[in-house]
Amino acid sequence: MNFSDRLAETIRKKGAPLCVGLDPRWENIPLAIRKKHGPRTPEGEAAAYGEFCQEALELVVPFVGVVKPQSAFFENCGPEGMKVLQSLLGHARALGLITILDNKRNDIASTGQAYAEAVFGRELDGKKYAAWPADAMTINPYLGADAVEPFLDSARKADGGIFLLVRTSNPGARLFQDLDCSGKPLYFRVAEAVAKWNEGHIGACGLGDAGMVVGATYPSEAAELRQAFPHVWFLVPGFGAQGGGVEEVRPAFRADGLGAIVNSSRGILFPTKPEDVNWKQAVVEAARSAASQLGSLLKGQ
Amino acid sequence: MNFSDRLAETIRKKGAPLCVGLDPRWENIPLAIRKKHGPRTPEGEAAAYGEFCQEALELVVPFVGVVKPQSAFFENCGPEGMKVLQSLLGHARALGLITILDNKRNDIASTGQAYAEAVFGRELDGKKYAAWPADAMTINPYLGADAVEPFLDSARKADGGIFLLVRTSNPGARLFQDLDCSGKPLYFRVAEAVAKWNEGHIGACGLGDAGMVVGATYPSEAAELRQAFPHVWFLVPGFGAQGGGVEEVRPAFRADGLGAIVNSSRGILFPTKPEDVNWKQAVVEAARSAASQLGSLLKGQ
Repeated sequence: MNFSDRLAETIRKKGAPLCVGLDPRWENIPLAIRKKHGPRTPEGEAAAYGEFCQEALELVVPFVGVVKPQSAFFENCGPEGMKVLQSLLGHARALGLITILDNKRNDIASTGQAYAEAVFGRELDGKKYAAWPADAMTINPYLGADAVEPFLDSARKADGGIFLLVRTSNPGARLFQDLDCSGKPLYFRVAEAVAKWNEGHIGACGLGDAGMVVGATYPSEAAELRQAFPHVWFLVPGFGAQGGGVEEVRPAFRADGLGAIVNSSRGILFPTKPEDVNWKQAVVEAARSAASQLGSLLKGQ
Repeated sequence: MNFSDRLAETIRKKGAPLCVGLDPRWENIPLAIRKKHGPRTPEGEAAAYGEFCQEALELVVPFVGVVKPQSAFFENCGPEGMKVLQSLLGHARALGLITILDNKRNDIASTGQAYAEAVFGRELDGKKYAAWPADAMTINPYLGADAVEPFLDSARKADGGIFLLVRTSNPGARLFQDLDCSGKPLYFRVAEAVAKWNEGHIGACGLGDAGMVVGATYPSEAAELRQAFPHVWFLVPGFGAQGGGVEEVRPAFRADGLGAIVNSSRGILFPTKPEDVNWKQAVVEAARSAASQLGSLLKGQ
C-alpha cells in the first residue's frame, strides 16, 4: 500500500492523528535510567536514549500510530548513537508503528540519493539494506527540484513518503519563509512545488506521498495552505510544549478530518520531572490525553 | 586563531585556494581497494571508503590545505560508515588540514544545537567530545535566524566556522533561490542575512566566520555577490567535474586573491578508471594541477 493510504489507515485505526516525536534530551531522561547508564559518556548517553525511547514506544503504542525520531540527538552521541537510532527504528516498525525520521536532509543528485537510500534502502550484495530504516523522512527544499526528486524517487520505490519543510514552527521562521515572492510568501511558493510533486501520486485517501511541514504555531498560514492544497499531508509540529493547542492545529485538517498528523514530543515524553518514579504512568496519561484531544478533529468535530 | 584567519593562513601556506571534497562512491573506488574489502556489505563499503579517503588525504596534503568530507556517503553505510567518518576527520586534522564537514544540517533551537555540538563538540563527563569533529560545517538556512544561531554560537566557541547554502551549484537551484523577493532574488536575501551574521566577527584577513556556498556554475551571480559582500568567505563547489573552470570561479575572489575556497571532488579523487593500478599518481597529478590553476587566482592574476 502506498504511504499516504497507510498513514490514513493507521490514523483511523488508532483514532487520532497524533505522532510522538522521539527527542531524547539527557536533562529530561528519568533519573533511574540516567543512573543505570552513567557516567555520561557518548556510549552511556546513547544507551540511556535507547532504553528510554524503547520504553516510550511501548507506552504510547496503544494510542499512537506514528512516531518521529529526531536524528540530531542520536547523532550527537556518535556512532553508538546511530546504532541506537537504527535499532529504535526497527523496534518501532516491529510494533506496527509508522516511522518518520526527522533528519531534514538535503543535497543534490547522487548525494541526495545516498541520503535517501540510507532511509529507504538499497540493494547491497543481494540484500536490502537501509542504514536508518523509516517509512518517511523530512527534507529541506531550499536546493530545488533536482535535490528533492532523488528523495521522492527513492521513497516511492519503497512505498515511503517525504515531508518537505514549508512553514516551520519556530519564531524565526518568518525571516526567509515570509519573503514576498511576487505576491505570495516564499513558503507558499514552496508549497506550490510540493503540490506539483504529488501530481499522479494521490492515494485513495485523496492525499499524496509528498507532504509538508506546517507548524502549529502559525494557524492562519495553515488555514491558507489547507485551502489551497487539499491533496497534501501536513506534518504539524509545535503542539503542546511549543504552544499550539487543538484550536491552533484545527485549520490544518480537511473537513473530512484527514490531512494532518500532529506531532508532540516533550509534552508526551517528558510530562513529569526526571526524578518522578511514576514517569511511565505520566507518559501513558499524556499520550492518552493528546490522542483524545486530537481524536475529535479526526471525526471532523 | 579564529576560523577565517586560519583558513586564509592555510590557503596562503599551500599557495592555492583549493579544497578537496571527499565524496567516496563505490563505483569509482579503485578496484584493488574494493576487492580487499569485498563483498559489498555496509561494513565492507565503509572500510573501503575509509582506506581510500585516508590514502587520498595523504596524497593531496602537499597541495591542499582544506578537505570537505561529504557525510551522505558515510551515512549510507550505517553506524560503521559513521565510525569511518569520525576517524577520517581525526586523521585529516592530524595532517594539519582544515576540515569542512559537508552535512547541510538545519534545525531549530536545542535541536540545531545538538547537530552543531556533534561537530564542534561539548563537555561530557569532564571531557570534550565531538561525534564528527570538524573545523566547519555546511548549513541550510531555510528555517531562519533561530535555526542558524545555534550553529554559529557553537562554531564560535570552538573557533570554527559555518558555510550557509546561498546559491547551490545544481541546475535546479533556480526553482526557489531565484524567486524574486521584492526586487532581489531569494539567494541574495539569504546572502544579506549571512553578511549580518558576520558583523562583529571579521578576522584580520577581512573575512568573517559565517561563509556562504556559491556554486562555480553560476559565475555572474558569484560576481554580484562578491561585490555586495566583500567580507564573506565563499565556498565554491562545482569546479572540475560539474563544469566550472578557473574562469568560472574567478568572480568569487576579491582583488587581493582571497575570499573564496574552491572545491573539487571527483576531478581530484577519481581522475582515472577504477581498474587503473596507477591511480595514486593520477590523484597526485590531479591535485597538483588543480592547485596550480587555482594558485594563480590567489596571486590576484
